[in-house]
Amino acid sequence: MESARGFAFELGHRMEGALGRTGVIRTPHGEIATPAFTPVGTKATVKAVLPETMRDLGAQVILANAYHLYLQPGADIVEAAGGVAAFMGWGGPTITDSGGFQVLSLGVGFKKILAMETSTVRSDDVIAPGKDRLAHVDDDGVTFKSHLDGSMHRFSPEISMQVQHQLGADIIFAFDECTTLLNTREYQELSVERTRLWAERCIAEHERLTSQRVGRPYQALFGVVQGAQYEDLRRRAARGLAGLPFDGFGIGGALEKDQLGTIVRWVAEELPEDRPRHLLGIGEPTDVFVAVENGADTFDCVAPSRNARNGTVYHPERKFHLTNGRYRRDFGPIDDTCDCYTCTHHTRAYLHHLFKAKEMLASTLATIHNERYIVRLLDRIRHSIVDDTFTDLRDEVLGRAR
Amino acid sequence: MESARGFAFELGHRMEGALGRTGVIRTPHGEIATPAFTPVGTKATVKAVLPETMRDLGAQVILANAYHLYLQPGADIVEAAGGVAAFMGWGGPTITDSGGFQVLSLGVGFKKILAMETSTVRSDDVIAPGKDRLAHVDDDGVTFKSHLDGSMHRFSPEISMQVQHQLGADIIFAFDECTTLLNTREYQELSVERTRLWAERCIAEHERLTSQRVGRPYQALFGVVQGAQYEDLRRRAARGLAGLPFDGFGIGGALEKDQLGTIVRWVAEELPEDRPRHLLGIGEPTDVFVAVENGADTFDCVAPSRNARNGTVYHPERKFHLTNGRYRRDFGPIDDTCDCYTCTHHTRAYLHHLFKAKEMLASTLATIHNERYIVRLLDRIRHSIVDDTFTDLRDEVLGRAR
Repeated sequence: MESARGFAFELGHRMEGALGRTGVIRTPHGEIATPAFTPVGTKATVKAVLPETMRDLGAQVILANAYHLYLQPGADIVEAAGGVAAFMGWGGPTITDSGGFQVLSLGVGFKKILAMETSTVRSDDVIAPGKDRLAHVDDDGVTFKSHLDGSMHRFSPEISMQVQHQLGADIIFAFDECTTLLNTREYQELSVERTRLWAERCIAEHERLTSQRVGRPYQALFGVVQGAQYEDLRRRAARGLAGLPFDGFGIGGALEKDQLGTIVRWVAEELPEDRPRHLLGIGEPTDVFVAVENGADTFDCVAPSRNARNGTVYHPERKFHLTNGRYRRDFGPIDDTCDCYTCTHHTRAYLHHLFKAKEMLASTLATIHNERYIVRLLDRIRHSIVDDTFTDLRDEVLGRAR
Repeated sequence: MESARGFAFELGHRMEGALGRTGVIRTPHGEIATPAFTPVGTKATVKAVLPETMRDLGAQVILANAYHLYLQPGADIVEAAGGVAAFMGWGGPTITDSGGFQVLSLGVGFKKILAMETSTVRSDDVIAPGKDRLAHVDDDGVTFKSHLDGSMHRFSPEISMQVQHQLGADIIFAFDECTTLLNTREYQELSVERTRLWAERCIAEHERLTSQRVGRPYQALFGVVQGAQYEDLRRRAARGLAGLPFDGFGIGGALEKDQLGTIVRWVAEELPEDRPRHLLGIGEPTDVFVAVENGADTFDCVAPSRNARNGTVYHPERKFHLTNGRYRRDFGPIDDTCDCYTCTHHTRAYLHHLFKAKEMLASTLATIHNERYIVRLLDRIRHSIVDDTFTDLRDEVLGRAR
């Protein structure tokens, strides 16, 4: 899809017999070669890592959270700084999510049951009806309590657009209702319809705001496909959004991990091929092959950096915990096939020491490795699609992983 | 002074009518142009900053603490890694202190009364005789309790040398007794004599260890001049050490801030001109001019990085606190005359946000600025000695500081 407004998606190679493809997303702040991993910088910083280091490790784009920046420092301040890319000293392409996930997910144990193996759902993960929820959703929007100071706030499709226009990312998302696997089928149906109505309101507000802000870089708006684990709802939701003038699409919400590829396929089959598809909140190394194969172009996930701060680092054979005593005298790198700064300059023994000594540099070095690992994995996947060696790469990487 | 053993100090320019000078310290891991500031990496990391970033900001040498590395991860592990420079992925020149300060200073409120304005000493800062001290000193050494797990340990001159040889820094320090301004004159006399006897034992043990370790880079040994605020004791201590085959000298221990220059001068007048002088634990921007002027060549201090982590940053006019609400919408750099990564890429508003959001990057960016600020100040001082403009620079910098 070409756009006169500074945003475009150019399709590259297509996989034989599958929905995967390469492409280039062009934004006012630069290009994103897809498939691509999007590191998450929740509060306008990828935790513990300098923007220039993110650039050096190959990050093409960073996703920040509208909810968090709205509360702190405030969207007006990010706007006054020239938008989130300028505010954080990144300069490259940025994405913000709509806040829909965060306003509904904080304080109710909700995150735990959004994307998991349902066999492990325990009864105490279920939202207790009597529990003091931090958010209330109605047809017009969501009223929620700040996790910072308990103050009350309200997001609607219009407010989310206004906030995201202030934040100024290259790609923004329509405000959606994010359900969980434990909502009833009836609720999921109502919710999909509500998200469709909100999508229309987002487009109207986005167009109003865009027309008012002459001379500012165009922000691309992506609609978000919900529908949980139901094929008919996912397809209906995708078809409903496909007819709207979105620049791209997000695939969001509740899904069972072992259904990931199937759900992405349902949605990708309904969406127009010429617009990019972003899989929201997914990005463990083991997830991306099936998602790419079924048509996802970009991914964001906090897992690489969150794991890193807990001392868990990626490795071709398995993730491992640097705090384990076995690494005290291990003077090899985390991964001797990795080209990241951490693996080329530091040993497991040094990282073990830094974690044990509770030094901040432990998080920095482990995050650099994990982010480079997943960014590079997507780079390799992208090249494998071009070379028609995707299946070999997938079998090699997943076969080695235990 | 030249040495066949890989360590040398080459004198450069001398100041007219004062004891300040420039020079070059040559070590097996590289050169240090003096006067120079030595950032502190207590546990083999300058907190929150990558080694390559320290190099980029102009750090020439890093000081680590023998006490901390002895306890965690253990000197044997640092030795197995190839020494502290290799262990931390720094590669450049390194210094370790002897552990003398730490073994005596932890747990007794001692640090507070080591270098302060005595007018502000309150009675509750005084070491209470009945208090459960974490350390006991006798003529042979110091028995102390680990601040990590309460286990008992003992450092003697010989053990300090053994530990520092394992740590493998280019410059190591003789084990000394560090007193406070509140010890009696009688105790200071006894202590100076004890430190002199320990210095002789350190030299003997250092020579024994050096002769045993053929093929490893030479480690230079510096003696430490104590004597608190007493001119006769400081001069006696300096003369006593000057006659011993030390490669350089440290100036340590208790001193009143407004006596700093005088004490450095007493000591520098007694020490041989051809060996470098390191002022231990001093390095606020306002301290260094008087210290350089009176003959100090190198300085280490945790203040730049500790201040930074608390949100206090250096500025030509005054230090200020980034957490102050006045910086919420301040889109200028910390210091518009600074060339550091932080000042050239980030605003006060962004740093304010990061501190408020408790993001680790706040510490990283503030530390980069403060360390660059003091490293660059020493660079400017060094050049001013060569250009004979030291007085102008001093008056300009101190005159602007409020």
